[in-house]
Amino acid sequence: MDRTKVRVVLVGTEGEANLGFIVRLCKNFCVDELYLVSPRIDPFSEEVRRFAAHGSDYLDSGRVVVVSTLDEALSGVALSVCTSAHVGKEGDVLRKALDVREAASIARRYSSVALVFGRESVGLTREEIARCHVLAHIPANPEYPTLNLSHAVAIFLYEMFRELSARSSLDLLDIATEESIRIADKYIELLAKLVASDDRQKKVMSMTMKRMLRISKLTRAELGYVTMMLRRVGRIVEQCLKDKDVNRL
Amino acid sequence: MDRTKVRVVLVGTEGEANLGFIVRLCKNFCVDELYLVSPRIDPFSEEVRRFAAHGSDYLDSGRVVVVSTLDEALSGVALSVCTSAHVGKEGDVLRKALDVREAASIARRYSSVALVFGRESVGLTREEIARCHVLAHIPANPEYPTLNLSHAVAIFLYEMFRELSARSSLDLLDIATEESIRIADKYIELLAKLVASDDRQKKVMSMTMKRMLRISKLTRAELGYVTMMLRRVGRIVEQCLKDKDVNRL
Repeated sequence: MDRTKVRVVLVGTEGEANLGFIVRLCKNFCVDELYLVSPRIDPFSEEVRRFAAHGSDYLDSGRVVVVSTLDEALSGVALSVCTSAHVGKEGDVLRKALDVREAASIARRYSSVALVFGRESVGLTREEIARCHVLAHIPANPEYPTLNLSHAVAIFLYEMFRELSARSSLDLLDIATEESIRIADKYIELLAKLVASDDRQKKVMSMTMKRMLRISKLTRAELGYVTMMLRRVGRIVEQCLKDKDVNRL
Repeated sequence: MDRTKVRVVLVGTEGEANLGFIVRLCKNFCVDELYLVSPRIDPFSEEVRRFAAHGSDYLDSGRVVVVSTLDEALSGVALSVCTSAHVGKEGDVLRKALDVREAASIARRYSSVALVFGRESVGLTREEIARCHVLAHIPANPEYPTLNLSHAVAIFLYEMFRELSARSSLDLLDIATEESIRIADKYIELLAKLVASDDRQKKVMSMTMKRMLRISKLTRAELGYVTMMLRRVGRIVEQCLKDKDVNRL
């Protein structure tokens, strides 16, 4: 497999300095694409170029793309990783976060990854976080973990660059394909729909199971067994609920 | 031994924005002291404070010290690490550099470390590099490895922080207990028994699912959803198979 393609996605960026710095970092760390979702500033302004320094040619390389929705920015990407300084409090499944290093080591197994960063002022919304496969954060001082946007990007890109330039024996393992993971996703969605009490529960169950599939780095054979189990269970439950009114508790 | 004391040393810093960002990073990553060798700007200016954001109180904490020579900045420090984007060409002993991660793992063995960063424009002189124990660099795009000063500091401090904190904010998350994982195991075993074609398949299915549960380091809440899903599915399948001969494929 070729090297993982890295796409940086910035949502609603507010500052020229930050954007310029991030453009420079994209060049420093060989980022393939930079997607800007509804930036609040002109990304091609002189001010941005000034902060991009010798990275400013990246702006004219065709690799910087402006879109209007997060969905557009994530299209065609195999794994989406969103980022937040605010790590989950107890019980908040949505905000359960991976460490940036773990996230990078997972991402290298995919053909492409989107690293999604929120606004300087308010970060990403809960809806935006829910739209991504995994959430990642940078370990820092618990009393003040909030890094400036461009510095958070620097650390994510640095870890991603390291992961992608190293080869380990793990790469030789027969890792489950993205397509087969998406097939398992379908069975998870089906099962969650069949057994959840309401729509919210269905979403959380399915999100948690899908995340577990991705984080656990299954081999092709392992994923085969998991999918087989999910598929059989799904068929039985479906048929059963169709036939009669089973006590669902 | 107590935790290694970390001192950031900036030589001849030229920009308020960079200094402000670095002050903020010192708070983000629990740096003990920030020494400024002949800064070209007023380190306590409003402009610096603006970029330091919520880290600006660090400027008033007594931990920011202005000195006029590098020697003063290194006094009392057990290990000095200087940094450069320009890694040694063959044969240039002075510029033989460690990777930032190696440097951090070495530094943790000392009671105190100084991380020395040069000017935005020209970095450190050969004399200044010679004054430090080791030279370290950040692996990056060989065609453009020069990071902005504050971003280089971010990555060094991040690596240092990781090395020095055995516990990070992720550890504070509410991780699923072993007992609750064993409860989920029971439902997995039940399901595997119900849907596997034979004993070997049952064993592999259940082993794979159990491993996935453990590798994915679920929180208590996430495991709650997974267990709920498994339990409900298990009940339905069990009842169903008892009641009638469902097509098991």
